[in-house]
Amino acid sequence: MMHLFFDPDLHADTSMLSEEEAHHAVHVLRLQAGDRIGLLNGRGARASAEIVTIDKKQCRVRIIGLEQGPPERSGTIHLAVAPTKQMERFEWCVEKCTEIGVDRITPLLTFRTERSRIRKDRLERIAIAAMKQSQRSWSPTMDDPMDIAALLRQARPSQRYFGWCTGDHQALTALRRPGDVLLLIGPEGDFTAEEADLLRTNGSAAVSLGRARLRTETAAVVGCTLLNMV
Amino acid sequence: MMHLFFDPDLHADTSMLSEEEAHHAVHVLRLQAGDRIGLLNGRGARASAEIVTIDKKQCRVRIIGLEQGPPERSGTIHLAVAPTKQMERFEWCVEKCTEIGVDRITPLLTFRTERSRIRKDRLERIAIAAMKQSQRSWSPTMDDPMDIAALLRQARPSQRYFGWCTGDHQALTALRRPGDVLLLIGPEGDFTAEEADLLRTNGSAAVSLGRARLRTETAAVVGCTLLNMV
Repeated sequence: MMHLFFDPDLHADTSMLSEEEAHHAVHVLRLQAGDRIGLLNGRGARASAEIVTIDKKQCRVRIIGLEQGPPERSGTIHLAVAPTKQMERFEWCVEKCTEIGVDRITPLLTFRTERSRIRKDRLERIAIAAMKQSQRSWSPTMDDPMDIAALLRQARPSQRYFGWCTGDHQALTALRRPGDVLLLIGPEGDFTAEEADLLRTNGSAAVSLGRARLRTETAAVVGCTLLNMV
Repeated sequence: MMHLFFDPDLHADTSMLSEEEAHHAVHVLRLQAGDRIGLLNGRGARASAEIVTIDKKQCRVRIIGLEQGPPERSGTIHLAVAPTKQMERFEWCVEKCTEIGVDRITPLLTFRTERSRIRKDRLERIAIAAMKQSQRSWSPTMDDPMDIAALLRQARPSQRYFGWCTGDHQALTALRRPGDVLLLIGPEGDFTAEEADLLRTNGSAAVSLGRARLRTETAAVVGCTLLNMV
């Protein structure tokens, strides 16, 4: 199995790995000129390449074959999830949702969200690593944090659901139909009644993700699992 | 919401919290005599209780009401999963599967399992904490590690599946019927062909858990999610 590397600017001809990727190639994998590697751009393109030059800081490769793969799903999955107080849990969430399948992740700021600052660059790296680990070629877009109103203005899918423990809801699996989906997962304290009203008014349906009250990051992973079943 | 504590020997009348639980009650929650708490035994019983005496090491409570709840599922879920190299990932797996719903967890020793020693007491504590967190009254039984042959002799469900990336498989959701289920999740390197033959010969069907190749702990969480849908 070829080692996979990430190049967001992947195109035919040649590529220069980032310093981080070059460092991994040199110091961890001990690759050399002439070795073959795989390249991904996180948007479906996959290339095989041969290392031309390699040193501590740089790695230039020659692209041998470049293929654009189709999307993994016919309906895109956009997950908006409240960042957890412990950053590790949110990072776990991003990693697992990427493995299972998600197209866009928005850190969601709500009244009861316990953390407003996130390290987007770190979350992007975690998603890219998860993509490579599962040998796929799509990595989710990571947004900057935004509140519900901003999300509703930006989000593309018309099919919208929010996890709701407090009041009336139906099973996500009962409502889900083919096509693009937006799923909102609230903080540990749940969405407020006003937020639930705002969401319902804007076309989101309240859903349950199972029998139990789940932690935020667990609900996100369960939601992605259920949405990938279609 | 009442604070929940664990007492495996819960019965009517009185209870003495373990030293660990007493410490939490005193030093973290600052509870006092007269305070009300909830008690769980991990097997469906839930009691409300009043603290009688409390000090640094002990906490005695008087049981006010004791109820035995029904099982959460009509069909039990037995998960046998290869311990991961990084213990943290396996601990996440136990925590998340407990949140989502599982009755018995067996650390599974296979040819390619990357870790044979686990801390059963620590995993049990993690499962109990997850049970309390999700305010439910059932916590999975945790087994000592065992190999496939021993598992097949011990396991009760006749409906058996194993996650299988390498060869022919069907979607778990397509095969699953009501009733008790055993789901085996192999190590990062997958089950060997011989192990797959052994499993098939003993009535286990090879299943896929989705489109992607998942890490062991992710596959276990996805599997639990799908099995809890019935």
